[in-house]
Amino acid sequence: MFEKELKGELEIRWSKIKNAIKAANIESCLISDTINLYYTTGRVFNGYTYITQNREPLFFVRRPIGLVNGKISYIRKAEDIIEKLEKLGYPIPASIALEADSLTYNEYNRLASVFNDSAKYNLTPIIRDVRAIKTPYEIEKMRESGRRHAAVCAHVTSVYQDGMTDDEVCIELEGYARRLGNLGIFRIFGSSMEIFMGSVLAGENADTPSPYDFALGGEGISSSLPVGANGTILKPGMTLMVDMGGNFTGYMTDMTRVYSIRELKSDLAKSAHQASLDIHKWVRENVKPGIAAADIYNYALELAKSRQLDKYFMGHKQQAGFVGHGVGLEINESPVLAPRSKHILAEGMTFALEPKFVIPGVGAVGIENTYAVTSTGTELLTLFNEDIIELS
Amino acid sequence: MFEKELKGELEIRWSKIKNAIKAANIESCLISDTINLYYTTGRVFNGYTYITQNREPLFFVRRPIGLVNGKISYIRKAEDIIEKLEKLGYPIPASIALEADSLTYNEYNRLASVFNDSAKYNLTPIIRDVRAIKTPYEIEKMRESGRRHAAVCAHVTSVYQDGMTDDEVCIELEGYARRLGNLGIFRIFGSSMEIFMGSVLAGENADTPSPYDFALGGEGISSSLPVGANGTILKPGMTLMVDMGGNFTGYMTDMTRVYSIRELKSDLAKSAHQASLDIHKWVRENVKPGIAAADIYNYALELAKSRQLDKYFMGHKQQAGFVGHGVGLEINESPVLAPRSKHILAEGMTFALEPKFVIPGVGAVGIENTYAVTSTGTELLTLFNEDIIELS
Repeated sequence: MFEKELKGELEIRWSKIKNAIKAANIESCLISDTINLYYTTGRVFNGYTYITQNREPLFFVRRPIGLVNGKISYIRKAEDIIEKLEKLGYPIPASIALEADSLTYNEYNRLASVFNDSAKYNLTPIIRDVRAIKTPYEIEKMRESGRRHAAVCAHVTSVYQDGMTDDEVCIELEGYARRLGNLGIFRIFGSSMEIFMGSVLAGENADTPSPYDFALGGEGISSSLPVGANGTILKPGMTLMVDMGGNFTGYMTDMTRVYSIRELKSDLAKSAHQASLDIHKWVRENVKPGIAAADIYNYALELAKSRQLDKYFMGHKQQAGFVGHGVGLEINESPVLAPRSKHILAEGMTFALEPKFVIPGVGAVGIENTYAVTSTGTELLTLFNEDIIELS
Repeated sequence: MFEKELKGELEIRWSKIKNAIKAANIESCLISDTINLYYTTGRVFNGYTYITQNREPLFFVRRPIGLVNGKISYIRKAEDIIEKLEKLGYPIPASIALEADSLTYNEYNRLASVFNDSAKYNLTPIIRDVRAIKTPYEIEKMRESGRRHAAVCAHVTSVYQDGMTDDEVCIELEGYARRLGNLGIFRIFGSSMEIFMGSVLAGENADTPSPYDFALGGEGISSSLPVGANGTILKPGMTLMVDMGGNFTGYMTDMTRVYSIRELKSDLAKSAHQASLDIHKWVRENVKPGIAAADIYNYALELAKSRQLDKYFMGHKQQAGFVGHGVGLEINESPVLAPRSKHILAEGMTFALEPKFVIPGVGAVGIENTYAVTSTGTELLTLFNEDIIELS
């Protein structure tokens, strides 16, 4: 089920989940979301993790065969779980939490009828809150992703040649990231967003409104995936925004840097970029446990307003309603940095901050970094030159 | 909402959905799954397509801004739909089908309470059946994907160098496919499977049991994504199975070819590969509208048994219970070629046939092709050398 050397780490996570269901007065939870299975076992399997307030976790497995370590029961179907619980001397729980925001309607109902006599609760917000606070082990995984992610940003200057298109740059960076160990897969909570390995936006394409809930859009190269590069030929005076995913360790970092094709002449673009850097500076100096996530958004928006940049903030034709988001196993974890966010930052949280501006006729500017919240402030996980980097 | 030149094509699809809900005695359906939105509009948006038995489809859109063509209403939340229906003179339907196998439990319940007084049905199997029969336009898209997919298979011989690892080959093929226009994204129905752009399996790694419902497994390079290449160094006598996704047009083809590192000496592997070719030959000669999908599986298994190859069929340590699957916008559409499948092949269906064998000590053999069912037989969409190709 899990590697023995991971056991101490997993026990911390199980204990966090146990405490969370205890605090919600729920006796047990049944986990089947792929990412939550990975979180609770350090591996992917087809089946369920079952965690109760007081007993050892159980693992009900359909596939793969041959797993060892932990209390594993092989099952054929969800209905077998009850019999296995009885066999192991575990009572049928009085209450159970299920992943109501990731199980489909039919999957949920099937599990609900397996636990027909148990009161049902929603596990999704509970486990998202648990996962929002990373362990030191998880933060080290993110540090490692951040280091390699920075190398991808550094590689842009080696890739660029006059006359290239945005998607050509994107494809070169994808291959480079893969050779550095990027898993490629870009995990997103929920089903309303899709992206391949990330987004490269040049010039006007940065202002193409998106159907997705990303910070910025882009037309994409196909109507079936309208995001990111669209084949724009890179021309002097444009900016090139590189916002690729950093999934090098199972844990992702999120990071954006901006490049200009030859010299950037737009003073507006330069000041907007400076505004983004100033928002990052404020976060580094002020954010610590206890700060409200909404306050970061509000600060960023106020700064943009005070410099008459609000109409370019987080998009121009269409504007996103957030300035950052939690990141970890998935790209959109808790907390969300948005005006109505209820999240309060706590030690161990990791978030991406991405104050961006879209300047008509030029392109997108601003940077994105991933930060971990420490006991006294923040740690920057994505270290690389934050200025607009000239390509020639 | 949609490109004008697509309108004729979309009208065919709307009409198929209208007929399907009429046949099921359901008045209307509300579509929100990304791929089903794409199917009904030729584009991706955040919102809903609403189709009734007799009236023009409606499109309720949250994002992006600026869409034209068709009856579009901008909404902020699902609850706004009722007011928009009234405004447009559409009655509240007596019955409505929702995507119960792709909406989450909470998403479904929210929509169900918007249509509080309407009887609810499951749209997922209905629209999967509709999508299973491709239009000539869709088959042409798949033909085009197949052509470029074949070029990726042909590229393997240019990529190979002595001493490479399986993942190095995989990464080179990914970049090549991307440069040929592959969108990268690999769409799978349901949430229990993940893969990046495809799978490259060398030697013993082909026998690593997988948690996913793919034909074969592989360890992968990370415990968070246990499928495909695992860093195996390619050595003489091994086979290298290349099974990459072919999403060049929004529509995918599925295709597998096998290579040997230097000369393949295993007679067992050679005969198993021949068995796969013979199964394909039988399908080309016998499959036409009216044939049961289960019969293809049964034929393949019987052929494997008659040659004493059944213990290697569709895996060795762990065996998959199917020999093929529908393919189109997603990799796992209807019909499924499995013993208990109820599907009967019909003109316009497209399916991938992948009789594969895992030979201990050698690796995987067998090929996969995508076929379209014509009025009298099948059309092969993935044309390329089907023999084991020697690399040196």
